[in-house]
Amino acid sequence: MFSVKKVLQKPNYFHARSYTLKGWVTSNRGNKKVRFISVNDGTTIKSMQVVFKGDQFDFELLDKLKSGSGLVVEGILKETPQAQQPIELEATKLVEYSIAHEDYPIQNQEMKLETLRDLPHVRHRTNLLRAIMLVRSTLAHEVHRYFMQREFYYMNSPIITSNDGEGAGETFVVNDGEKEPFFGKDKKATLGVTGQLHGESAALGMNKIYTFAPTFRAEKSNTKRHLAEFWMIEPEVAFYDLNQDIALADDLLKVVIRNTMFKNKDELQYLNDTLDNSLLDRLNEFVNTPLKIVEYTQAIEDLAKVKDIFENKDIKFGLDLATEHEKYLTEVVYKAPIAVINFPKEFKAFYMKQNEDGKTVASFDLLVPGVGELVGGSQRENDVNKLLQRIKELGIDQDDLKWYLDLRRFGNTGSAGFGIGFERLVMYVTGTENIRDVIPYPRTAGNIRM
Amino acid sequence: MFSVKKVLQKPNYFHARSYTLKGWVTSNRGNKKVRFISVNDGTTIKSMQVVFKGDQFDFELLDKLKSGSGLVVEGILKETPQAQQPIELEATKLVEYSIAHEDYPIQNQEMKLETLRDLPHVRHRTNLLRAIMLVRSTLAHEVHRYFMQREFYYMNSPIITSNDGEGAGETFVVNDGEKEPFFGKDKKATLGVTGQLHGESAALGMNKIYTFAPTFRAEKSNTKRHLAEFWMIEPEVAFYDLNQDIALADDLLKVVIRNTMFKNKDELQYLNDTLDNSLLDRLNEFVNTPLKIVEYTQAIEDLAKVKDIFENKDIKFGLDLATEHEKYLTEVVYKAPIAVINFPKEFKAFYMKQNEDGKTVASFDLLVPGVGELVGGSQRENDVNKLLQRIKELGIDQDDLKWYLDLRRFGNTGSAGFGIGFERLVMYVTGTENIRDVIPYPRTAGNIRM
Repeated sequence: MFSVKKVLQKPNYFHARSYTLKGWVTSNRGNKKVRFISVNDGTTIKSMQVVFKGDQFDFELLDKLKSGSGLVVEGILKETPQAQQPIELEATKLVEYSIAHEDYPIQNQEMKLETLRDLPHVRHRTNLLRAIMLVRSTLAHEVHRYFMQREFYYMNSPIITSNDGEGAGETFVVNDGEKEPFFGKDKKATLGVTGQLHGESAALGMNKIYTFAPTFRAEKSNTKRHLAEFWMIEPEVAFYDLNQDIALADDLLKVVIRNTMFKNKDELQYLNDTLDNSLLDRLNEFVNTPLKIVEYTQAIEDLAKVKDIFENKDIKFGLDLATEHEKYLTEVVYKAPIAVINFPKEFKAFYMKQNEDGKTVASFDLLVPGVGELVGGSQRENDVNKLLQRIKELGIDQDDLKWYLDLRRFGNTGSAGFGIGFERLVMYVTGTENIRDVIPYPRTAGNIRM
Repeated sequence: MFSVKKVLQKPNYFHARSYTLKGWVTSNRGNKKVRFISVNDGTTIKSMQVVFKGDQFDFELLDKLKSGSGLVVEGILKETPQAQQPIELEATKLVEYSIAHEDYPIQNQEMKLETLRDLPHVRHRTNLLRAIMLVRSTLAHEVHRYFMQREFYYMNSPIITSNDGEGAGETFVVNDGEKEPFFGKDKKATLGVTGQLHGESAALGMNKIYTFAPTFRAEKSNTKRHLAEFWMIEPEVAFYDLNQDIALADDLLKVVIRNTMFKNKDELQYLNDTLDNSLLDRLNEFVNTPLKIVEYTQAIEDLAKVKDIFENKDIKFGLDLATEHEKYLTEVVYKAPIAVINFPKEFKAFYMKQNEDGKTVASFDLLVPGVGELVGGSQRENDVNKLLQRIKELGIDQDDLKWYLDLRRFGNTGSAGFGIGFERLVMYVTGTENIRDVIPYPRTAGNIRM
């Protein structure tokens, strides 16, 4: 059976055909002779109006099918060119139903996002959360499709690991509550903060790989942009340098966003009208504007000229760009998506390729108007000695990384990759401000509801 | 640039074209005037032979490019109809290379799977593990593609949860090592054993959903079929009954396996020749044989007739089928994939729909020749009172499941779903006997290597 989404795309084709609709009531009005019940089948934010007319229906029962009730109804599709919706269903038979209990918590569609956060098990049944979640699913599908079509190997890095990926600390510890540690006495078992290091091992041999999996950080900071559990997209390509890496990130984002805009037109229009009036303009602008590449030192010069407008005015080599700086660069100075490259090594991870200047590393942050950083990546250091030296400088335990160092000695001409926080991407594409609204069951400090 | 996989599919088309090959050496032979180096680019188990001839090459250097070395080489593709491989590369320029260190641990392709388990960071560079991992990736891609094409919503259930999914115990506990528990004092934070319960909340409103994510079980049993961390595919469809659920599982498996057989012909042929001579026959048989549906009570009758051949001879209503029973049913009695349905409720999960006989639940196990159970699923109990009663009988904490019980009161006519252990599927399709060989970095009790 075709979905409501498909039917709405070709009302003319479906006119006069018989159809079985399965979904949930979003509104119910009428009298004892005719009833108009709007039903959403979950494939689009658009509901389909079902018209019940005639003696075969129990109108007292129909009256009870309030918002949230589930039903299966057979009927004939009728084009309605003059109405708001192009097609409706003339019911012939109510096959099945389940009346929503009176305490069904979604009584109107205008509930606040904050209130809905207390109802993660039902909030996707509002227009707003349904729109966000449908876009989330499409984005994920498009990411897989992008890599599939380009022959990337889908790598499943381990979640439980004894490697503390970026040396950032703040990891969750895993145990089974027994005296004898499940994974052995010597090893600390933590939840992975990145799939990259293991991904690099796969790229060496499989060539082009990506991970797309949950990652974890025990960060207590309670912001609109942080989760303890979030999904990351992390490709890694052998033989790639920094420029190729940036080109991949730019192309991935543009293809995935363009396809999502095409597939979720109604949802994005709704989000534009409801959450953020500049959303569609911003997305169109992004997919149609070529990326510019900007040296970090140039970016510092650009920012220094207007340093007084920033909260952090200490603009000099060594500054880790804050969102205010990032947004100014991409929105005001370059008026385009930009990749800032070659950052000072001090605030970047140990595995990034050291440039010949001895001060910077072959890294990039991809910044977009409206939000700032969306992607971070780098070419990896493939000189085992330089890598080892950096690991020592930073005091990282090198025993744990022996296997990772070995990768440099087994036919490695260098590789490059990047990471995209998937929820950040969903926020950007849906115009959502709080990261808790773009993942079904958000996990943050103190919050493990349901 | 086209992959070696693509080139091998149409050697005629690529003949005489210039080509840049990026990959790793699998063999190197020749003399000081001509050198034949086979290079694998990671997209197929087939390597491409590169011929180096002429004064422009440093033959001493070429001699050093032993197995595992990485290289980028430009040349002209030449058809070789009389040779084993249909096309080879006549090198014009060695662009880049990285010589593998002498202690590169993969010196021949005939290493034992057991030995390779100690080398998860390089083992995918053998033919055998490369074949398995390429099939794994294709299977995952095909699963996503199957659901995408049928408008399923891709649901990300939480990984860290306070719900103990099936009430099976044996969960991992998560904390951040601080005094004050990260997720709060009252809640036990564990790693999810299933995405199903949260998936059900999504199905109610999104209609057709699936999860495909890591799940965890702190099982100490050290068998060939158990991992502490494994990936699960779990669809859930609102309005579906048991029969529709079974039809979905059967179709999913057949489509995904058929497409994978088409896309990884060389890898599956290699696995058939190397690991299991009956692999291709078994897969062909599976995708071409209609599924049969068998009542549990009938299965018990079938088995009772020959009970003496089993280790467990106590064949009567209440028996939880062991692999020996499952294999006999599907291989000998029915000679087809079968779905055994309506199991006794005693050994099935609390959320399964109770049948009218008061003894069985609307569940199924899908059994296939060669391995036994591949899928388990059920229609869910949507009567809130029956569900609550079962929760009480089993002594499960109902406070934790209040939200789950609520789903029954908010327009739920019933839903159905199933779970496929992804690694079990990879084992089945690749003919691999030990589950540690089908996931890049296996996690088992006492083992968290790398």
